[in-house]
Amino acid sequence: MELQKLDRYAKGLIKEAGRKIRQSFSSELAIESKADANDLVTNIDKEIEQFFIRHIRNDYQGHLILGEEGFGDRLTKLDGYVWMLDPIDGTMNFIHQQRNFAISLGIYKDGIGILGYIYDVIHDELYSAQKGHGAYLNDEPIPVLESTTISQAIIGLNASWVVPNRHIENEGLIRLVKDVRGIRSYGSAALELAYVATGRIDAYMSMRLSPWDIAGGVVIAQEVGAVATNLNGQPLKFLEQDTFLVARKSLHDSLLNDYITLK
Amino acid sequence: MELQKLDRYAKGLIKEAGRKIRQSFSSELAIESKADANDLVTNIDKEIEQFFIRHIRNDYQGHLILGEEGFGDRLTKLDGYVWMLDPIDGTMNFIHQQRNFAISLGIYKDGIGILGYIYDVIHDELYSAQKGHGAYLNDEPIPVLESTTISQAIIGLNASWVVPNRHIENEGLIRLVKDVRGIRSYGSAALELAYVATGRIDAYMSMRLSPWDIAGGVVIAQEVGAVATNLNGQPLKFLEQDTFLVARKSLHDSLLNDYITLK
Repeated sequence: MELQKLDRYAKGLIKEAGRKIRQSFSSELAIESKADANDLVTNIDKEIEQFFIRHIRNDYQGHLILGEEGFGDRLTKLDGYVWMLDPIDGTMNFIHQQRNFAISLGIYKDGIGILGYIYDVIHDELYSAQKGHGAYLNDEPIPVLESTTISQAIIGLNASWVVPNRHIENEGLIRLVKDVRGIRSYGSAALELAYVATGRIDAYMSMRLSPWDIAGGVVIAQEVGAVATNLNGQPLKFLEQDTFLVARKSLHDSLLNDYITLK
Repeated sequence: MELQKLDRYAKGLIKEAGRKIRQSFSSELAIESKADANDLVTNIDKEIEQFFIRHIRNDYQGHLILGEEGFGDRLTKLDGYVWMLDPIDGTMNFIHQQRNFAISLGIYKDGIGILGYIYDVIHDELYSAQKGHGAYLNDEPIPVLESTTISQAIIGLNASWVVPNRHIENEGLIRLVKDVRGIRSYGSAALELAYVATGRIDAYMSMRLSPWDIAGGVVIAQEVGAVATNLNGQPLKFLEQDTFLVARKSLHDSLLNDYITLK
């Protein structure tokens, strides 16, 4: 497998999918709810996932696909090449805002992320990385992250986790909100990973994410020195939903040890 | 006073200021703290405010200027023409992200907002309105806002107000976080007002904003039917800091009556 060729191919698919998404704004969306009333999906999420799968199955036979909308494969292990795809990460933003969503794609080989992509379709910003070869925003290298402190940090954290909830002791997060410089919430895990990778925020956490939400972003963030684990500090498994934390190296331990207590 | 001419003049100044801000990214920022450690100001905030003031004082003698950085006039009333300017709204984002900040400008005549501008410098998106003549995003008219419900709403609300604080009873906001579809926080009051005006979020509130943070955005949001008051439901005075709520008309009363209790 030639990595450069696979990279060019994946970027080509992503850009083409982006064009399809932009074109979709002129037609009416069909919106449905999934697991709960606010877990939304549109015809465009489904069409874009099917577009990827059709091409990958044709051009890379033997590669497996883990896709948010369920048109891919059901996996119990990560042997061989696995494409982890969220055709539209941030569907609620896609519907309400027509911005602040992204195509998220990670290509993993035997469980190791080798290629990662986050495409901010509206702003035509493609974040990408090849494992061991650095990360890029379009054609510009993204610098390695410098260290920072909790008191100077901006954290990506949704208010849902700061109010009493069944996943995490919210007292710790209340302290965190008071200790840091600022809190932001953008509503797309992929874009928040891109923000961590580019140093625009210093950490991002969530109580419940799926492999396709983070697979691409983790490859990118790790290339610039960020640390990504679940909220127990364990390595990510990329086979099922889990908690998630990505942070500058200098913040990761402190966030886990001083602020996060799972229920 | 010819309104069209004033509008063209203000837009010209704003675009020129935007170019200066973009150019500043290649030079080192000088960052200072103001009232508290996280209330930041840079040399660029100051230079841009002085750029506006120099031109306004030269070209519109008799107009008064209320500017965040304090180079303008001290006002105790809003007689005549008053320019309310935040040269960089979202300075923390400007420093950390080099995006998600805006130039915010409202021009008021005898206390009534007649022209409003929010310029997202990085994305070259100028939101503007003339009172009574509708709102625009660049050259495109912004549609009047339709009604929505709390359960389908996305609210702009910083987590700082959801944790115990000295401004508002946070129990009400905890209920709000649970009742709505989503919570977002972008870190710029001006941009969050632009987001409300374009229907990307359905309401935005803050416990402490100054006239220059909201003066431009309120003119724009009101032109598309949003309602803006303080958190007691009273009209905005634009002379001192106050609480702030802007929302689609269909949500404004419910937010005030069912969720907001000031201390």
